[in-house]
Amino acid sequence: MARIVQKYGGTSVGDVERIKKVAERIKATRDEGNELVVVVSARSGVTNELLARAKAVCEFPSERELDMLLATGEQETIALTAMALHGIGVDAVSYTGAQAGIFTDKVHTKAKIKTINAKPIVRDLENAKVVIVAGFQGINEEGQITTLGRGGSDLTAIALAAAVKADKCEIYTDVDGVYSADPRVVKNAQKVPEISYDEMLELASSGSKVMQTRSVEFAKKYNVVFEVRSSFNHNPGTIVKEEVAYMEKVVVRGVAVDKDQAKVVVSNIRDKPGSAAKVFRALADANVNVDMIVQNVGRQGVANLTFTVPQTETGRVAKVLEPVVAVIGGDVAVLEHIAKLSVVGVGMKTHSGVAATLFQALADAGINIELISTSEIKISVVLDLERADEAARVVHTAFQLDRP
Amino acid sequence: MARIVQKYGGTSVGDVERIKKVAERIKATRDEGNELVVVVSARSGVTNELLARAKAVCEFPSERELDMLLATGEQETIALTAMALHGIGVDAVSYTGAQAGIFTDKVHTKAKIKTINAKPIVRDLENAKVVIVAGFQGINEEGQITTLGRGGSDLTAIALAAAVKADKCEIYTDVDGVYSADPRVVKNAQKVPEISYDEMLELASSGSKVMQTRSVEFAKKYNVVFEVRSSFNHNPGTIVKEEVAYMEKVVVRGVAVDKDQAKVVVSNIRDKPGSAAKVFRALADANVNVDMIVQNVGRQGVANLTFTVPQTETGRVAKVLEPVVAVIGGDVAVLEHIAKLSVVGVGMKTHSGVAATLFQALADAGINIELISTSEIKISVVLDLERADEAARVVHTAFQLDRP
Repeated sequence: MARIVQKYGGTSVGDVERIKKVAERIKATRDEGNELVVVVSARSGVTNELLARAKAVCEFPSERELDMLLATGEQETIALTAMALHGIGVDAVSYTGAQAGIFTDKVHTKAKIKTINAKPIVRDLENAKVVIVAGFQGINEEGQITTLGRGGSDLTAIALAAAVKADKCEIYTDVDGVYSADPRVVKNAQKVPEISYDEMLELASSGSKVMQTRSVEFAKKYNVVFEVRSSFNHNPGTIVKEEVAYMEKVVVRGVAVDKDQAKVVVSNIRDKPGSAAKVFRALADANVNVDMIVQNVGRQGVANLTFTVPQTETGRVAKVLEPVVAVIGGDVAVLEHIAKLSVVGVGMKTHSGVAATLFQALADAGINIELISTSEIKISVVLDLERADEAARVVHTAFQLDRP
Repeated sequence: MARIVQKYGGTSVGDVERIKKVAERIKATRDEGNELVVVVSARSGVTNELLARAKAVCEFPSERELDMLLATGEQETIALTAMALHGIGVDAVSYTGAQAGIFTDKVHTKAKIKTINAKPIVRDLENAKVVIVAGFQGINEEGQITTLGRGGSDLTAIALAAAVKADKCEIYTDVDGVYSADPRVVKNAQKVPEISYDEMLELASSGSKVMQTRSVEFAKKYNVVFEVRSSFNHNPGTIVKEEVAYMEKVVVRGVAVDKDQAKVVVSNIRDKPGSAAKVFRALADANVNVDMIVQNVGRQGVANLTFTVPQTETGRVAKVLEPVVAVIGGDVAVLEHIAKLSVVGVGMKTHSGVAATLFQALADAGINIELISTSEIKISVVLDLERADEAARVVHTAFQLDRP
C-alpha cells in the first residue's frame, strides 16, 4: 500500500467520457490498495471560454475577478470526477483549493503557495476516501480565491504530495514523458526514463513544455519524486528526481528548441559603467523576463548589448527601453526571426568537449550561431528560426541521442 | 440615498451582452447615490448543462457533489458582472455565498439559511463598492458548499436585504410583475401594483410561478418589502409587502391556474377512526406534498378520500399507498387530467359572496367543479384540464379584474 498523488491535466478530463476513463484509472490504482489524492485541472478549453467571456464584458478584467472566474473551471471538474467515481462504486470526495487548505500569498493570477493544511485530506484518506482536489487554485489569508498561474495544477499536485507525505506523485498529461527532443521534429527522439530536477528545469526553461519551471523547482526544494506519464496509455513515463551519480554517464540528456524567443540588440551604447545595469533594471521593473545576455565593446567606446526575451514581450521591450536609451544613448533593434537551441545534461559537469561537439555539428550543417550562453548543465545557442528544426536533428544525432 | 438589494435572474444575465446591460442598470442605480448589493443567478441554461454532465458521469449524483458543481454557475456570473462594472468605471467586488457569510444547515441541494454574517458586505458598501453576491448558494458549519434549491437566488436577495437592513429589495426577472392572471391565457390581465405577502404566497402555491413560496415566507417573516420587476424594461413592477387596510378593498387580487396537479382518490376505505391519518402519515413520511383534501363518508360505512398532489409525485403516491390500503382497505385511483383554479385576495376576509360569484361564473360556462377547498384568502377548485384556460377567463371577468 502506498500513498499516491495523481494529477490529470485538462486534456485528460476534457469531456465526460474522458472523466469516466480517468475515474476507471483512479479506481484501478485504488483497488491495488493505495491511498489516493487526485488533482484535476479544468476541462481543456474551459479556461479559454471563460477568458473570452471576461474579455467580452471588460477589456482589462481585474485579476481578483479573473481568479474568481477561472476557479470555477476546476471546481466543475472535481465534482464531476467525484461523481464518476461514485458511479463505479468508489468512495470519493471533492475539495476546492480553499477546502484543501492551500493557502497562498495575495498575488492574484499567479499566487505562490505559502502553506498547506493537509489535515482534512489526510483524515479522509485514513477513512478510505479518494480525495479529489481542484488544481491551480488556493485561498489567501483574507479568504480571497487565488490562482497559481500557468501550470498551477502541477504545482498543486507536487505541493500536496509534499504535504501529505506521498510515496509517489504521478503527473498525467497528453504526452508519454520527457523525450530527448521534440518527437514531432526529431523522428527518432527517445523517451528518457529518468531525469534530474536540474535537467528538467533547464529543458523546461529551454522550451520543452512538459512542465512549468516552478513546479519542478518546488519538487526539487521538497525532494518530491514525480513521474510524468500519459493518461491515454499505460506506458511508463519519465521519473524526475534528485540527481544521482549514474545520471552523469549521459553527457547530454536532451535537445530543446524554443521558437518563442526574440533577440533584442541595443547597439552603440556609450560605454560607461552602469549602462547595462540601467537597461536591465528597466526591464526587470517592467517584469520582462530576460534570458541570454551578451555584451561586447566595439570600437570608439561604444558597446553592444544583445539579449533574448519572450516574443510576447517585444512590444513592451521597445517601450520600456525608449527612456533608457534617451539617457545612455544607443539604438534598439528587435529581431523575432530566431530560435534558441539548448543541449542539457548533468553529465556536462564531468565531460568536456560538449561545446565543441555542438558547434561542430552546427558548422557541418552550415548553420550560423548568433549568440551563445552556457550554464553548468546547459549550452544554448541562438540561430535562424528557419533552420531550428534541422539544427535539432543534427545535434540530436551528434550526441547519439537516437539510440534507445 | 438608499441601501438597495437587487437580484437578477438567469435570463437577465443569460449572456455577456445581457450582463453588460445589467451592469448599466446597476451603474444607473449607483449613480443616483445608492448603496448597492446585487445578487445574481447562473446564466440561464448553465445549470441544466451542468446537470446533464453530472447525469452523464453518474446516474445518481451525490447531493454534496451536485452542490459543488452547481455553485460554479453563479460564481461565474458574479465575476463577469463585477468585471462588466469595472469596465464602465464602477468599483465592484464579487462574493461567493461562503464569502458573503451565508451560513446554511447541512441539507445539500435544498439547504436553509441559518445566519448571515453581513459585516464584510456592509464594510464594502461603506467603502463605496457595489457588492455582487452569488445567489442560490451558501456554506455549512463544516465548510461544505450548499445550495438553496429552486428559487434560491430570490431567497439570497431577500435574506441579504434583511441582513444589511436594506431600504429596498428589487427582484429583477423576465416578467413585468405579478398579474391578475397569466397574460398568455387571459388577454386583458392587469399588472397588480401592490400585493400582500399572504396573497403572493397563495398565488405562488396556486401555480403562479413568479417566485417560490419560501422566499415570500422569508420576506414576510423579516418584513422585507420587495418589488418584482423586469430587467428588460423600466416599467414599475409589483410591490410585495405587509397587508394594509386599503388592500382589502379589492376582493380578489388574482386568478391562478395550476396544471401540474393530479387528483388521487382512495375509495371504499373502511370508515374507522385513524384511516385518513394513516394515509397522510404515509404520504408525509415519503415527503409527498399533499394539497387539497376532501373526505366524504358514503353508504355502508365506507369512506372516500380525495386529494391533490404534484403530477411529478403520482408514481410515488401509488407505491406509498399500496401497504396502507392493504391495512385500511380501499382502492387508489390517480387522475392526471385536472387543473386547479384559485382566486386569491385579502379582501375575501371582509367581503362575502366570493364563492357564490366563482361558482356561478363556472356554472354559467358549463364547467364542472370536481373539488373545492377554501382558506381565509383563497378559494380553489379542481376542474377538467381541458377547460382550465376558459375557466380562468370567465372567472377573471366575473371578478372585474380586467379593469386597469
